[in-house]
Amino acid sequence: MTQPRRVGLIGLGAMGQGLASNLLRAGFEVHGCDVRPEAREAFARAGGHAAGTPAEVGAACDVLIVLVVDAEQTEEVLFGTTGAAAAMCEGRVVVASATTPPAFVARLAQRLSERRLLLLDAPVTGGVSGAAAGTLTLLTSGPEEAYAACEDVLAAVSSRIFRFGTTPGLGSKVKVINQLLVGVQIAAAAEAMAFGMRQGVDPQLLYDAIRSGAGDSWAFGDRAPRMFSGDGSTHTALDIFVKDLGLVLDAAREAEFPTPLASAAHELFAKAAAAGLGRADDSAVIRVFPGIS
Amino acid sequence: MTQPRRVGLIGLGAMGQGLASNLLRAGFEVHGCDVRPEAREAFARAGGHAAGTPAEVGAACDVLIVLVVDAEQTEEVLFGTTGAAAAMCEGRVVVASATTPPAFVARLAQRLSERRLLLLDAPVTGGVSGAAAGTLTLLTSGPEEAYAACEDVLAAVSSRIFRFGTTPGLGSKVKVINQLLVGVQIAAAAEAMAFGMRQGVDPQLLYDAIRSGAGDSWAFGDRAPRMFSGDGSTHTALDIFVKDLGLVLDAAREAEFPTPLASAAHELFAKAAAAGLGRADDSAVIRVFPGIS
Repeated sequence: MTQPRRVGLIGLGAMGQGLASNLLRAGFEVHGCDVRPEAREAFARAGGHAAGTPAEVGAACDVLIVLVVDAEQTEEVLFGTTGAAAAMCEGRVVVASATTPPAFVARLAQRLSERRLLLLDAPVTGGVSGAAAGTLTLLTSGPEEAYAACEDVLAAVSSRIFRFGTTPGLGSKVKVINQLLVGVQIAAAAEAMAFGMRQGVDPQLLYDAIRSGAGDSWAFGDRAPRMFSGDGSTHTALDIFVKDLGLVLDAAREAEFPTPLASAAHELFAKAAAAGLGRADDSAVIRVFPGIS
Repeated sequence: MTQPRRVGLIGLGAMGQGLASNLLRAGFEVHGCDVRPEAREAFARAGGHAAGTPAEVGAACDVLIVLVVDAEQTEEVLFGTTGAAAAMCEGRVVVASATTPPAFVARLAQRLSERRLLLLDAPVTGGVSGAAAGTLTLLTSGPEEAYAACEDVLAAVSSRIFRFGTTPGLGSKVKVINQLLVGVQIAAAAEAMAFGMRQGVDPQLLYDAIRSGAGDSWAFGDRAPRMFSGDGSTHTALDIFVKDLGLVLDAAREAEFPTPLASAAHELFAKAAAAGLGRADDSAVIRVFPGIS
């Protein structure tokens, strides 16, 4: 290993910025890119080396973290016209952190290995606040060599690193299951808050009581306030849960496994998206219930 | 108010025992009864006055807490042949803490007022552990006089007392909404754990990762370990959630309000009960999923 270690980061959204801060603080040289100029500028102001293309980032780093939205974007930034994979040196590692189908991750590992690149399957959970605080949960799987090639980088990003085995895709399976729970629990929070408000219960009191008792969940605590406070800011776009619960249903169909709650939750998010709420905060799913405007 | 204050407790199950301990510790004289002799004996050993009938308890107390399972039992212990209501002095207060339909509570208030008795609608959440630790959440509503007549008793039982208004039934509406969330979240925990195990994910690791991330819920933390640990002990009987999610669906039908997640969860618990698991722990709902024995 050479010093200083160079980390590449593709995808400088709110979560990527959080990771970048922690990596810079830990002394890494961080190269990054994003399609949005304002994201690149914020990254540069924070001390990062902003690049124009994924290929430039790939050429400049020892470890490449891909933190884009989905499988299509992961494919594009690695193997597209200006993709990073062709620019990376043999033996380097790609840390794939978008939420993607487990089967996609398995194919990705295969394609990268043909270029003698390693893959660590490493989707994350814990939200934007976790990325900034260094308390993200990393759901990882991959071969020993992949871990060995990036353990210092992972350690700088979070202390909560779960290892599910040597097969790429296992980490993504767990991420899909995590999204099943988050999606169902956001939808349940909406169903509960809407039902209470419809019956004349004060929403703030209802929220406080649920938080105090057995009905509480991380998703309820995080999302329910935005369901009645009039705070219209978007933290996670509703479309993300249409996509992620879609990944749950795809995985369930592939495994011939019934997921009735995920199906019901997916339908609520799809209904909200169809009503034009796809770009709104995911808490806006409450607006599919009667009496909520 | 006379001293020492005398509290009656009908229903000495695990939760009732927890309340009794806190009341005795706070210096109240506690009278109680239960249909099961072993519950009465445990209560007497702890320092309570065990009575043979609800009427005896009603005659001996200033404040009567009814902590039985449902509306039918509440009806029976108050107005049955040996019911407490007829034995209580005018102006006394009944604290109704079973999970019952909100409409039942409204009728109960009316019937008690005809005997010049007060009603405090006060279902609880927080489980057996909360009852013992004094951290139960009380979801209350009722007239000022009812609160005034029992505030010292409530304070001895918990510091988490939520007041939803003066109308009896509002507390029970919130309890029903709480059960919607708990029921959906236990069912979601089962769906997630079963799906993960089916895909070859180590259940203990899966549990730890979910707890660490955004998919966590109180119900997941409490129930999921019993879904894979082989611990067959019954904490809450599965039949309770068939009943409580049934109350959610009844309330939803009455309000003409859609509750797709509660409906899906109810179906899973009903399916488990139909398979003979009604008396098993509610975590046994995981056994309706394929591959779980």
